[in-house]
Amino acid sequence: LVAVMAPGAGPDDAAEVVRAVTADGGRALASRGGGRTLVGLTGTARTGPERLRALPGVADVVAVTAPYQLVSRQTAPERTVVRVAGVPIGGDHLTLIAGPCAVETPDQALAAARMAKAAGAALLRGGAYKPRTSPYAFQGLGEEGLRVLADVRADTGLPVVTEVVDPRDVELVASYADMLQVGTRNMQNFALLQAVGAARRPVLLKRGMNATIEEWLLAAEYIAERGNLDIVLCERGIRTFEPATRNTLDISAVPVAQRLSHLPVIVDPSHSGGRRDLVLPLSRAAVAVGADGLIVDVHPSPDAALCDGAQALTGADLAELSRTLETLPALLGRSLT
Amino acid sequence: LVAVMAPGAGPDDAAEVVRAVTADGGRALASRGGGRTLVGLTGTARTGPERLRALPGVADVVAVTAPYQLVSRQTAPERTVVRVAGVPIGGDHLTLIAGPCAVETPDQALAAARMAKAAGAALLRGGAYKPRTSPYAFQGLGEEGLRVLADVRADTGLPVVTEVVDPRDVELVASYADMLQVGTRNMQNFALLQAVGAARRPVLLKRGMNATIEEWLLAAEYIAERGNLDIVLCERGIRTFEPATRNTLDISAVPVAQRLSHLPVIVDPSHSGGRRDLVLPLSRAAVAVGADGLIVDVHPSPDAALCDGAQALTGADLAELSRTLETLPALLGRSLT
Amino acid sequence: LVAVMAPGAGPDDAAEVVRAVTADGGRALASRGGGRTLVGLTGTARTGPERLRALPGVADVVAVTAPYQLVSRQTAPERTVVRVAGVPIGGDHLTLIAGPCAVETPDQALAAARMAKAAGAALLRGGAYKPRTSPYAFQGLGEEGLRVLADVRADTGLPVVTEVVDPRDVELVASYADMLQVGTRNMQNFALLQAVGAARRPVLLKRGMNATIEEWLLAAEYIAERGNLDIVLCERGIRTFEPATRNTLDISAVPVAQRLSHLPVIVDPSHSGGRRDLVLPLSRAAVAVGADGLIVDVHPSPDAALCDGAQALTGADLAELSRTLETLPALLGRSLT
Amino acid sequence: LVAVMAPGAGPDDAAEVVRAVTADGGRALASRGGGRTLVGLTGTARTGPERLRALPGVADVVAVTAPYQLVSRQTAPERTVVRVAGVPIGGDHLTLIAGPCAVETPDQALAAARMAKAAGAALLRGGAYKPRTSPYAFQGLGEEGLRVLADVRADTGLPVVTEVVDPRDVELVASYADMLQVGTRNMQNFALLQAVGAARRPVLLKRGMNATIEEWLLAAEYIAERGNLDIVLCERGIRTFEPATRNTLDISAVPVAQRLSHLPVIVDPSHSGGRRDLVLPLSRAAVAVGADGLIVDVHPSPDAALCDGAQALTGADLAELSRTLETLPALLGRSLT
Repeated sequence: LVAVMAPGAGPDDAAEVVRAVTADGGRALASRGGGRTLVGLTGTARTGPERLRALPGVADVVAVTAPYQLVSRQTAPERTVVRVAGVPIGGDHLTLIAGPCAVETPDQALAAARMAKAAGAALLRGGAYKPRTSPYAFQGLGEEGLRVLADVRADTGLPVVTEVVDPRDVELVASYADMLQVGTRNMQNFALLQAVGAARRPVLLKRGMNATIEEWLLAAEYIAERGNLDIVLCERGIRTFEPATRNTLDISAVPVAQRLSHLPVIVDPSHSGGRRDLVLPLSRAAVAVGADGLIVDVHPSPDAALCDGAQALTGADLAELSRTLETLPALLGRSLT
Repeated sequence: LVAVMAPGAGPDDAAEVVRAVTADGGRALASRGGGRTLVGLTGTARTGPERLRALPGVADVVAVTAPYQLVSRQTAPERTVVRVAGVPIGGDHLTLIAGPCAVETPDQALAAARMAKAAGAALLRGGAYKPRTSPYAFQGLGEEGLRVLADVRADTGLPVVTEVVDPRDVELVASYADMLQVGTRNMQNFALLQAVGAARRPVLLKRGMNATIEEWLLAAEYIAERGNLDIVLCERGIRTFEPATRNTLDISAVPVAQRLSHLPVIVDPSHSGGRRDLVLPLSRAAVAVGADGLIVDVHPSPDAALCDGAQALTGADLAELSRTLETLPALLGRSLT
Repeated sequence: LVAVMAPGAGPDDAAEVVRAVTADGGRALASRGGGRTLVGLTGTARTGPERLRALPGVADVVAVTAPYQLVSRQTAPERTVVRVAGVPIGGDHLTLIAGPCAVETPDQALAAARMAKAAGAALLRGGAYKPRTSPYAFQGLGEEGLRVLADVRADTGLPVVTEVVDPRDVELVASYADMLQVGTRNMQNFALLQAVGAARRPVLLKRGMNATIEEWLLAAEYIAERGNLDIVLCERGIRTFEPATRNTLDISAVPVAQRLSHLPVIVDPSHSGGRRDLVLPLSRAAVAVGADGLIVDVHPSPDAALCDGAQALTGADLAELSRTLETLPALLGRSLT
Repeated sequence: LVAVMAPGAGPDDAAEVVRAVTADGGRALASRGGGRTLVGLTGTARTGPERLRALPGVADVVAVTAPYQLVSRQTAPERTVVRVAGVPIGGDHLTLIAGPCAVETPDQALAAARMAKAAGAALLRGGAYKPRTSPYAFQGLGEEGLRVLADVRADTGLPVVTEVVDPRDVELVASYADMLQVGTRNMQNFALLQAVGAARRPVLLKRGMNATIEEWLLAAEYIAERGNLDIVLCERGIRTFEPATRNTLDISAVPVAQRLSHLPVIVDPSHSGGRRDLVLPLSRAAVAVGADGLIVDVHPSPDAALCDGAQALTGADLAELSRTLETLPALLGRSLT
């Protein structure tokens, strides 16, 4: 059972719902984000839907049949718009997030950010904490990388999206970043999901490379259930038998997830294919299928990159992506953010 | 080693190459299609590339490094245009193939063909021989179905694409059809591949649902190696762990196969997703990623379909697909055939 | 609905059931093999189970709930024993089939057969028609290979199991072979399944490398539905993301298939792993999990093999397999055939 | 480069190697466990192998070609025996770990532990922190569950293996548990791997359900690289397309991992199949393939279990497993711990 608060309802109204349910022996928690307030009722209570509907500020009380409830489309016929330092993701927008896979030096990060901005990016991506398969691979600059990202934001005006990999780091990363990314390997790191759910920052939740769409939405529910509804889903390829690409971009997952959930869904064409020559065609496919945005790796000199250089866009490819984004979204009823 | 014949070269020129190589103890076979003649040299011969290049009508002699040679892009920098009873697939064209999954009755087939034509289809699909997982499922009308398709062609003017599942039926099916389809379960039915390779009809080769792209191109090579270069590749989804869709459309396979091979690559958005609500978004993604065409199921009354009704387009969805195909291809430098 | 004939019932009794059902407007077909006769009733008939049970020779009439009926365990609580030229597979037996992947020369085939026999094999495997991914790979010796196998049988006394890949070849191959093999790539080649179903030879049906267990049993049903119940299932690995082995042996499929079907289930440890060093441990696992037999590649000089030499057993490995088979089966209540 | 310390070498000897390498500008870290001390040299140093070999207590200096080095078989020709509160895993031992999936109540945990002990288990498994796909599923009792496990240990004498899911909990869990389990969803939770690498407790590392064997060994290297070589690998099934089992037990992974690494490899037949009727055959297969142990779910009343009751063994099945373990290991040169 989810109590959907009316657009004009205030925190006190939600608190009143929580109080009423709790007084009856049930459990309730208000989650906020994307312009909504939902109160999830997870314990059984004697408070019936009729009594809740009568409370001030309650727009509706919905019984959700999906295994996830707060992120289910059933609670919100209109799709969510998440705002990251004012930049919208979702709705009629098409949002480009771009930047280096990993922050390596101040110069590299700034150069990549300027390339991203010139190509139409509204948000900057960049990794300071990198989850790497091998303990001997470059693990990121850590807090020093966060400082670099903050400097680049000051310089370019682009809000920052960056990954967090350890629940102990959430507060620190949130003090620098505008949006917290949970990576594919951590999609079922439930301690981390709960920690970002408690943070007051929008979250970019990448799909696990072996996760079903239902598991992905349940991972989002872990975040929502801790109070944070500002969640953007990101399809980034799943693991299959095909060796020609690093992973197989599951393009169908975009419309499927959008039908099941009100959350925005973006696509990462860089990590799914793992090949520069596929970023542009996969970006076009993502926009055409109806994705709410793209997150793309760029690097001023990909051959020298410490992480995933083989897929980073540069120069002419990036200009071509930029041209595509000027025309294609309009055809599908969207405008580039 | 492949001898690439010049555009103006005649059958005699190719025959001369075959004769020269054979005389030296090598093996050679001329393959034709898509406006090309290639002579594949599969045995080792003393005939060197220089001597072959000097023969009349030989444009080039190419040493191919891929495991497949006749279908490799290395033999043909320009992408192939396959003509099916005059209708082009490939090049700057975007070709829509549509029709019922299975031919059930003359009325149903005609109604579906008219829907297809109205939506912009240039070719009619329809199954008379259906490979079904269960021996107790509807197996198609057989030759009766072929006759129905021929009648519908006479009525609508749409050339016919239909599946063949048994090498013993190739001659019969080819006597009715304009293009022979090899289905996903038969992609490594080598006897069937060789039989359609020997037929003088263009072939639509669906990717095996568990085949790598390399295996798919090697299957095409089996057809080419028997003399037939009129091959169109069709991506139709691969088997993965994700249960939300029947198969996972491997959208990346389109640009990957186009880079590796000169053959046209089309997409089947109906069978990959197995859901009507995904056909339109997946069609848009396929066009945007650069596919050379689409093959789509339509049915006048999907709920009564004997085969795969859950994915057949009808009415409003089809009209929407039609509108998409009027605008999207142009943006990507293609015109609807 | 399946009419299960009593052990002592004769062909006339089954014919009488077919006649009774047909007379009532239903369809019925008698299938024989593994010491059983089952009459599958595939059309709807007015003949009720009670009337059928009253016919002479009818032991029971069973309504099967699985999508396959003749091969379902529901029709036969006791597991089937298939006899190949007198050699049993199934029941309390553990049957070793061994031999070269492909017949290359008379000497190679004879040497491999003697190695197989010395190791305890009761049946000889060997390919004359080889389905190969590339048209340029060795495709087998064809009928010449079949003659070699017949000679080796005459010499060693080992009945012959060999693959057939084309429905047009079934009669020819059956004239030489004691058991027909349908390979992994042809598991859903329905024309071939129906052809071997009509042949009077036991069939070894390999699981498709991308087939679910249910699809595998439905493929067996295609054979059974044409009259042939002498079917042995063979698990040979499925395609997954793991690159360390050629395929992933699905060891669980053995007990799962045995619970769902009365047919014997054997394991191919050679093709699943594709590595000689895994054949012995996987053979042990297969016997321990309850498989009814093993089919193993052996070669007198693997490094010179034209096909899959990397997995062929020889010398010490084969002796070790032999020793294992002397002790392990007894522990699990089986005796080596 | 790895410096392998001699069996008799002391901590001072390893410290001397670290000092020598560090003084030369390289980086070195001593890892201990399974009766070994290895010093991994991860930075480039001027210290040559010859000079290191001359240091006291250094048995050998090995250049490892695998991407993981400390866990590679190349550093240790003899397989490791890990001791958990005195109970050996690895070598000639076959170790049974059994217990409830989750600790629910003191009575349930004690009853399950007694069943486990009666069946031959040397170690008790039981989850206090449960990573669950849904935030609304039972998440375990937390520290209360750890206390219950400690009580059960005091009662039965069985050392305790339990999962830790959050790096912040490692110290707490280690204060109760004898062995720390890292679950399949956390195999690439690198912060957690590093935290258990720093703890002085043996670690049971489950394979990620989508991880390759190489990624699994690299995850073990993350633990080893922090100083802890007391690692046991656990194969528990991978995600494939087959729906008949929860996951597909990759039985080949056992010998493959044993050839690549010196660490012990055990099998979880309960979670891989997810079905009680498969636990016994898969246990037999695991022992026969050469696994160093089994970890099995048991529950006094599976139908009332809060977690994974469908796979928990009880009564007759457990007795049958027990009988199997009395005879099968001896045949393969092992003795039940």
